[in-house]
Amino acid sequence: MKKIAVLGYGVVGSGVVELFYRNQKKIEKNTGTELEIGYILDLREFPDDPYGDHVVHDIQVILDDPEVGYVAECMGGVNPAFDFVRRCLEAGKSVATSNKQLVAEKGDILLQVAKAHHVNFFFEASVGGAIPIIRPLHTCLAANDISAVAGILNGTTNFILEKMFCDKMRFDDALALAQKLGYAERDPSADIDGGDACRKICILSSLVFGKHVYPEQVYTKGIRNITLEDVQLAQDFGGAVKLIGAVKRLESGKILPTVMPMVVMNESLISHVNGVFNAVMVWGDGVDKTMFYGRGAGKLPTASAVLGDLIDEVKQTDTVESQSWEPAEEGADFVAPIDDFFAARCYRTSPCGSGVFAKIADEVGVKLLNTRENGCMISGCDQKTAEAFKQKLAKEGVEILSRIPVLDDEA
Amino acid sequence: MKKIAVLGYGVVGSGVVELFYRNQKKIEKNTGTELEIGYILDLREFPDDPYGDHVVHDIQVILDDPEVGYVAECMGGVNPAFDFVRRCLEAGKSVATSNKQLVAEKGDILLQVAKAHHVNFFFEASVGGAIPIIRPLHTCLAANDISAVAGILNGTTNFILEKMFCDKMRFDDALALAQKLGYAERDPSADIDGGDACRKICILSSLVFGKHVYPEQVYTKGIRNITLEDVQLAQDFGGAVKLIGAVKRLESGKILPTVMPMVVMNESLISHVNGVFNAVMVWGDGVDKTMFYGRGAGKLPTASAVLGDLIDEVKQTDTVESQSWEPAEEGADFVAPIDDFFAARCYRTSPCGSGVFAKIADEVGVKLLNTRENGCMISGCDQKTAEAFKQKLAKEGVEILSRIPVLDDEA
Repeated sequence: MKKIAVLGYGVVGSGVVELFYRNQKKIEKNTGTELEIGYILDLREFPDDPYGDHVVHDIQVILDDPEVGYVAECMGGVNPAFDFVRRCLEAGKSVATSNKQLVAEKGDILLQVAKAHHVNFFFEASVGGAIPIIRPLHTCLAANDISAVAGILNGTTNFILEKMFCDKMRFDDALALAQKLGYAERDPSADIDGGDACRKICILSSLVFGKHVYPEQVYTKGIRNITLEDVQLAQDFGGAVKLIGAVKRLESGKILPTVMPMVVMNESLISHVNGVFNAVMVWGDGVDKTMFYGRGAGKLPTASAVLGDLIDEVKQTDTVESQSWEPAEEGADFVAPIDDFFAARCYRTSPCGSGVFAKIADEVGVKLLNTRENGCMISGCDQKTAEAFKQKLAKEGVEILSRIPVLDDEA
Repeated sequence: MKKIAVLGYGVVGSGVVELFYRNQKKIEKNTGTELEIGYILDLREFPDDPYGDHVVHDIQVILDDPEVGYVAECMGGVNPAFDFVRRCLEAGKSVATSNKQLVAEKGDILLQVAKAHHVNFFFEASVGGAIPIIRPLHTCLAANDISAVAGILNGTTNFILEKMFCDKMRFDDALALAQKLGYAERDPSADIDGGDACRKICILSSLVFGKHVYPEQVYTKGIRNITLEDVQLAQDFGGAVKLIGAVKRLESGKILPTVMPMVVMNESLISHVNGVFNAVMVWGDGVDKTMFYGRGAGKLPTASAVLGDLIDEVKQTDTVESQSWEPAEEGADFVAPIDDFFAARCYRTSPCGSGVFAKIADEVGVKLLNTRENGCMISGCDQKTAEAFKQKLAKEGVEILSRIPVLDDEA
């Protein structure tokens, strides 16, 4: 018999305990091991909870119990999660976490500690909640040279953008509705300014390209300034505005991780991902493209991913080295500057004849893909060309109200 | 150094060799093992092929070489694949296969042989081509009680149905186009009559519910009789006709695997899966629902899945028991009869007033969800009720031109 310790008895932690006991027999059969929840670490007491007698307040109790082989970290935040996880790994206990901030900021260090102690640090739940994406990337897709990943990594913003798209709600109203329904925090900045998606694209970038990518290296732009008019123009052009976390390997060999609102054309399956759901598209030289879809958050969905990791950890006999990456090199330029960003673009403008758009497109050397009285879409170009297009429009007296890049589904 | 043997040097086998050598370094890093393609088994000679000197004609050469640890079976068909795979497993070599017929008909036996010899028999490529679905089901989703699976498991029929839906092509014309483009065989029956999808739902059913399900146990209906008018009526009701392979656990505890054309409403992401792509939706008590999407066939996509399996096999130290199932019991009634099938339905009829539909819906105890002059959609009901609805319509002098069930996205 082996014990699991759960750190943090909030939404996710209580979900882990609930789902474990609901499907304990199936989990034990899958692992071939008798398992139970040994401890729940939390500062609070839970006298009325059926598992309240498992609650301890001192991590040392867990560290000192040799029967604890596996730890589910569901506290969130870097402190004290980082310290606790490190000490668990050093004590020879494998850890599964749902904590994206911890992985995005300290993943390289914790992966090294895990390796040194022949245990595992898994984090399937840290990206896309319930969606199996981390494990498929380094197992099922292991024969591929993966060139790009792009996804809807934040359910709150996807809900807001869907309400703007389908129900013609203005941003503020859609945000207020998301808050009312509990999808958005009272202070919604981590979601709507892209910080949450940024951490997730850091994790995906690090795993796929092999070196740690930190949040501050990611060009991050949220949806705060997206207007109903932007969404409607995208719709006129046959697409939808989505907050896309993406990373691509450029011809230079550098990678470019970004979080920004993008227009996703209807031909791309990802444009049809609605509500609080997440989806991650992966491009590789074997698979072409493949997509993973599901709930990006929530008690039992996140618990499903944490427990999936714990189950795998029980079955492993040593560190799974394919699920790891190197620390970032000091001063390395592995990450390309945003100037290297290349994409088609939608411009929303003051009223303007299509002849003006066509003339300027021709001048800067791009194709005019579509026009409306209040905007246009031009073919793929770099930042410099996109800027030149904008300045030439301004010279013609056209006001630029917004510029949104278009996701390349054949990335 | 370990050798891989490839059985069958057709489309998939040559893809395995090509993708292996393209990404050999990455594969060796992932596995921590030096690998090479040791043998290619084929009846033919390939004098002009760069790997032509690897070709052998006798399986015994492969069986006798102790350096061959891993075998990719890409021959297709049950004979001689079954015999060859069995002997490889008995010789202590792990096997990865893309052969859905082999797994659907002989999977239980081969899994037992693999276990007896402490090796693995993996088959990620046998369902959904490039799509990671088999491994996520028994790893990432292992903490879930999975209640249902449904998917677009055949790209050829999905292409035909999309052409009918988007381009208003008639079935025969869409099939001819698919044949012209190489998506359909000259004899297209395995695709359009559902046999291919049937094998895949057998494999998914067996893995998810733990007992072997044979093709003859699956109610299988293809798309041969789907007309442009059926597709248009579904479109009028806000859905698309798709060939859906599905399996569901019923309240009786039995499972009901089916392959049939179904109407998928636009709210369900799977309705937007177009072209030759496949997608598999999974429902579990932790994840809620999750979907996997990608290319269901093709040289490199299929090779990606086969190599992903081989890579995993290199890393395993014993049989992965979670990726297996029991033989079906003699005369067992694990599989429910089609009479137990429950779904909403679309009826296409001769011209009929909505009052008639409403009256009969009321009489048989279902809700009328939508009507057109030439048809209606009624709420979920069993086969008996669906039949009663039809007979009462006939009594009113209404001709029933087709009846298509509706996929329940909240299965």
